[in-house]
Amino acid sequence: VTYLITGIGGFVGAHLSELLSRGPGTRVVGLVRSEKGGRAAAELPGVDSVVTSAMDSVVELRAILDSVQPDWIIHLAAQSSVGESWQRPATTFFNNSNIFLNLLEAMRQYEGSTPCRLLSVGSSEQYGNTLPRDSGYRETDPQVPNSPYAVARTAQEQLARVYGDGFGLNIVCTRSFNHIGPGQSDRFVVSALARRCVEAAEARRPEVTCGNLDVVRDFIDVRDVCRAYLHLMEHGGTGEVYNICSGTGTALRSLVCRFAEILDFEPTLKTDPGLVRPLDNPVVIGDPGKLINSGWKPCYQLDSTLHDVIEGWRLEALKS
Amino acid sequence: VTYLITGIGGFVGAHLSELLSRGPGTRVVGLVRSEKGGRAAAELPGVDSVVTSAMDSVVELRAILDSVQPDWIIHLAAQSSVGESWQRPATTFFNNSNIFLNLLEAMRQYEGSTPCRLLSVGSSEQYGNTLPRDSGYRETDPQVPNSPYAVARTAQEQLARVYGDGFGLNIVCTRSFNHIGPGQSDRFVVSALARRCVEAAEARRPEVTCGNLDVVRDFIDVRDVCRAYLHLMEHGGTGEVYNICSGTGTALRSLVCRFAEILDFEPTLKTDPGLVRPLDNPVVIGDPGKLINSGWKPCYQLDSTLHDVIEGWRLEALKS
Repeated sequence: VTYLITGIGGFVGAHLSELLSRGPGTRVVGLVRSEKGGRAAAELPGVDSVVTSAMDSVVELRAILDSVQPDWIIHLAAQSSVGESWQRPATTFFNNSNIFLNLLEAMRQYEGSTPCRLLSVGSSEQYGNTLPRDSGYRETDPQVPNSPYAVARTAQEQLARVYGDGFGLNIVCTRSFNHIGPGQSDRFVVSALARRCVEAAEARRPEVTCGNLDVVRDFIDVRDVCRAYLHLMEHGGTGEVYNICSGTGTALRSLVCRFAEILDFEPTLKTDPGLVRPLDNPVVIGDPGKLINSGWKPCYQLDSTLHDVIEGWRLEALKS
Repeated sequence: VTYLITGIGGFVGAHLSELLSRGPGTRVVGLVRSEKGGRAAAELPGVDSVVTSAMDSVVELRAILDSVQPDWIIHLAAQSSVGESWQRPATTFFNNSNIFLNLLEAMRQYEGSTPCRLLSVGSSEQYGNTLPRDSGYRETDPQVPNSPYAVARTAQEQLARVYGDGFGLNIVCTRSFNHIGPGQSDRFVVSALARRCVEAAEARRPEVTCGNLDVVRDFIDVRDVCRAYLHLMEHGGTGEVYNICSGTGTALRSLVCRFAEILDFEPTLKTDPGLVRPLDNPVVIGDPGKLINSGWKPCYQLDSTLHDVIEGWRLEALKS
């Protein structure tokens, strides 16, 4: 089978290509949107070739589909930082909703030898802030997105449904919760906190800057997310939406405490108001029941993931 | 007070400027996106000046706000045909969601002498197809948009909420149902059917082409819609959403029968499969209770509107 993976140069793309490189019989074509993505993709295992496209042209995307003839498309390309979406709403909207719509249009016009299936990666942020604390969101719950990022992801999923129902495209949707793991950019909060803890511990200065540590999120190892994506390509229902999550909520503050324990160091936490967002959801926990019923189960315990995240930043610190 | 009205060159813009020209003490600046819109706007009564902007640049929109210093912004600019959205989904998405987001960003950055209020025009299509026949949608009902147009409008409203809650912008939202009246483009079904009936009656050939005439919609006179918009600028609640509708469902088939009676002619209806959409909602009726409770009531009876629509196309036929 031939995979086309958009945004392969990013955090999830690296782990996904690693996972695919371990299985036989797959051809993996990566699509990157920028030179930077191209450089990252060139170093990945298991990637047969890489094409570059800003994804702003349906004609160009259609030509890529005609040339690659993918069986499966995994669409990872996105601006996936909620925080950044408050700084750059229009760019975030374009890099989630519009490029996805271009891909849908290209798929609609594409006449490959076999029909292809698309995995549309959405977000837990689509739920907004509608459930009582400590209960897990289900796929049937209402969506009240409350950040520019969340609105863009909600539109993406709705477009997937319209193209599935209206044009017969074969699409499986996810709502992926907060994925963490080694290699994640420090634009994302857990990776940023881990990096700051490692650097503070190395420098023997206790101060660690942070935003609102009271928010509770459902953290899941990026490698379990990748296993879920490949699982859904084979076993997901057409037109269905799946939460990808652990089912357990953890406060950011607990993660920082665990980082400190691993590093054997006592941080002094200092809140930076610039890191606090205009709106935020206090608690986002998912119910992974539908995904588990489809045959997936997680492999990674949170604590081992946290060790890997710290180890990743330790290795970075050694390099510099 | 100074009004900035985007998309003033369109169907609703013409009726709105007519209504505004009858009241004293208002300055009306129109914003048009194209030369064609500019030509239409130049002929309107009550419009003090017209600026042209594709609305694809936040910087340009910000400069327009700085220059115009509007108290009230009514955002009519849109690709508002559901049928066309199936032909040109990406353009429709851009011309609804993206240009609206650009306007929000410009408003966020704008520092006028007085804070301005924005009317965000949405659509009954946002509801999708979730209610039993014959009951009217309320503003609190779930939204399951099922056309590219409807997804774009839903995203627009969600962005309005995010910018209201997150950045404190003063925005009132509508979900406007099917507005009809003289001057509407025949890209819209009621106007198209009226035109075809007038032309068939004049030519004394009975055949009238149509799509699915069984769909039921909540039709409201465009002049009542304009009155509702001005009413909500003054009396609408910040962050609130209002249905703009009659509360009554009418099948397209009944409208065609009424057109035939007015024209004293017996049409033979012929279905064109090209006019049938990939997905459509059989029944869309709204509940106008919230708008009525805020102090608005309609002035136009459906039958007088239908007479005006036919009269409009008769005048056009005389011109040619």
